[in-house]
Amino acid sequence: MSDERQARAVWTVIAEPGDPVAGELVSWVGGDRALRWVRSLCTGRADWSLLDDEHDPTPLSASVRRRLVTRAHAWGQRLEAARTVLDVAARTDFEVVIPSDPHWPAGLDDLACTAPFALWLRGTLGRPPIATSGSVALVGSRACTAYGQRMAVELADDLAARGVVVVSGGAYGIDAAVHRGALSSGVTWVVLAGGLDRPYPAGHRRLFGQVVDDGGALLGEAPPGAVPAKHRFLQRNRLIAAITGGTVVVEAAWRSGALSTANHAANLLRPVGAVPGQVTSAASAGCHRLIREGTAVCVTDTAEIVELIGPVGARADETVVVTTPFDRLDQRSRAVHDALATRTTTSVAELVERTGGSIVEVRASLGRLDLAGLVVRDGEGWRAVGVRTS
Amino acid sequence: MSDERQARAVWTVIAEPGDPVAGELVSWVGGDRALRWVRSLCTGRADWSLLDDEHDPTPLSASVRRRLVTRAHAWGQRLEAARTVLDVAARTDFEVVIPSDPHWPAGLDDLACTAPFALWLRGTLGRPPIATSGSVALVGSRACTAYGQRMAVELADDLAARGVVVVSGGAYGIDAAVHRGALSSGVTWVVLAGGLDRPYPAGHRRLFGQVVDDGGALLGEAPPGAVPAKHRFLQRNRLIAAITGGTVVVEAAWRSGALSTANHAANLLRPVGAVPGQVTSAASAGCHRLIREGTAVCVTDTAEIVELIGPVGARADETVVVTTPFDRLDQRSRAVHDALATRTTTSVAELVERTGGSIVEVRASLGRLDLAGLVVRDGEGWRAVGVRTS
Repeated sequence: MSDERQARAVWTVIAEPGDPVAGELVSWVGGDRALRWVRSLCTGRADWSLLDDEHDPTPLSASVRRRLVTRAHAWGQRLEAARTVLDVAARTDFEVVIPSDPHWPAGLDDLACTAPFALWLRGTLGRPPIATSGSVALVGSRACTAYGQRMAVELADDLAARGVVVVSGGAYGIDAAVHRGALSSGVTWVVLAGGLDRPYPAGHRRLFGQVVDDGGALLGEAPPGAVPAKHRFLQRNRLIAAITGGTVVVEAAWRSGALSTANHAANLLRPVGAVPGQVTSAASAGCHRLIREGTAVCVTDTAEIVELIGPVGARADETVVVTTPFDRLDQRSRAVHDALATRTTTSVAELVERTGGSIVEVRASLGRLDLAGLVVRDGEGWRAVGVRTS
Repeated sequence: MSDERQARAVWTVIAEPGDPVAGELVSWVGGDRALRWVRSLCTGRADWSLLDDEHDPTPLSASVRRRLVTRAHAWGQRLEAARTVLDVAARTDFEVVIPSDPHWPAGLDDLACTAPFALWLRGTLGRPPIATSGSVALVGSRACTAYGQRMAVELADDLAARGVVVVSGGAYGIDAAVHRGALSSGVTWVVLAGGLDRPYPAGHRRLFGQVVDDGGALLGEAPPGAVPAKHRFLQRNRLIAAITGGTVVVEAAWRSGALSTANHAANLLRPVGAVPGQVTSAASAGCHRLIREGTAVCVTDTAEIVELIGPVGARADETVVVTTPFDRLDQRSRAVHDALATRTTTSVAELVERTGGSIVEVRASLGRLDLAGLVVRDGEGWRAVGVRTS
């Protein structure tokens, strides 16, 4: 395993899923350097040069340093646990997928600093690059009706038969019906909240095995051994939303976790659909709520779901990124780009002032923009290249 | 019966429902003068002075005259039939309600030149003025499911109990369930497509009797004896939409007449709701269609319907008219008002040119604006008073 892959695997153990500070640090200097800095700090010989930006001599401010140190101590306390986890993982067939891998699901980048450090994977994520719009999340309540179950199976079966990767959370009820329906004609992914060695619910162990055997995948950001605690389920929902081209709630009660997936998807500007049911069925109240509030479009069949998520097989990397690079950027990076001029250079300090972000944030944004080819370094400052967002 | 009432009753016989030319003529010089002009024409001694506007000396153009004469001959041919109809009506307890009556449903005025000439009524239209927003249309397919029927009864019962007048079309299926539900706790109106003496379907004769006995109403624009032909059903739907504060489709198949009522309501800027059902039920396909197309809001209970139609008991005449007189005007009258200045006068000929309407249309609009106190005559022309719409 490369140093960076190994380091990112460690980060999945030492930081909480979705921790934006750790996320920014790792995306800024890389998982390996960030980890070496944490280790140096814990041994009492903090090596701040590890956090230096080779392109930018501006030193980190005292307040940023303080914030990082506080967080780093908490991360450092879990380094020992991380070693154990990696030892366990070495004896499994779990793969660690990182952003530089060709089969890294591109949609996850939309999570910006809350993107997972790495994905733990059993099975196959399909040929690269992963087409975000070639996948759809079908989610719903555990306590479902025969109607909801029937719709879950039918829609999943139909979508999988059209070559759409059908993604769900592996829970009892709608999720399980979705995976079973998809298995009968295509590929399905299960996004778990806990470690892959602790498939939850345990009753689905055989189902999950079949998912992997049939060319699908079992994945998550939690390391082996991680218990699927409640906060992990909520964080897991953001992965389901980000990884897919759209989310459809098949059947959900008024306060269903499936609604959080739908809201994540809406926040990520992914299309959201909901299948209506009888208004006398409490199991459909969440779907009607999403439709009434305008979060979801009312969808009644496979064709309407396909229409919702856009052309099947369109590749994020081929179409969205190439044609509008800004679509892949987080809001802060867009703000940084907007603050740059194309003919004159702007310093990091000026960008901090103009965008209201911290130095760390601005540097992380510049890193992303640099990778996207949207900015160039010019002496002591930066210039924008390419089209503007506004 | 006053001359005007009698004349408008005749107009319901001699003109087709929703005939815009007859509608404009009648709204312009009144039903009685318009009828006397038709009679004069048919006896070969056309008295054009009957169509003179006392406020406007501009003579009707030759083309407008030609158009009116063509139509008037068709109307004149039914004068004999009208006499028979009024003889029949005199032996019934049917009331003829006209726009100047305090219990004329104000919402009908939004139909402008396609408003009915008069309403034939059995029963009670409630205390004047009729509150458009205190009523709701619940409509649906004849071929309904047990679910649709249950929802129709429950929603109608609940709304009627809250004092909302529940309006429907008296057909088999959803309509009948609506009337029955409303009867158990309040008042309901049946808007018929044919004459009140030919209640359709005949199997609902007893239901309709009960509607009247329980303080509700049986009404329509068709005169006694009129057969409920297909075109009359479509025209009837515009009355249901206009007379109420909002329309809710309880259950409707993909091509249901109830959708025409919903579309009429949407065109009249009335709120439209639809009750979802299982997507496997073809009987709900029309509802889902309306929701998907954005014509209807998804409604799942009485509270959501009440929220949709606005505060119950709000009076059109007390709130809407007084605060924004333009809300009661048709589009053409607004255009005419927009074409007028407040300080300089504009002639009818100029208004014709500016608005693209005919002289008859412009005069009718000026008449409406005059009644609303939004224009004043000034010498040979007109001036706007009050606020502008744009």
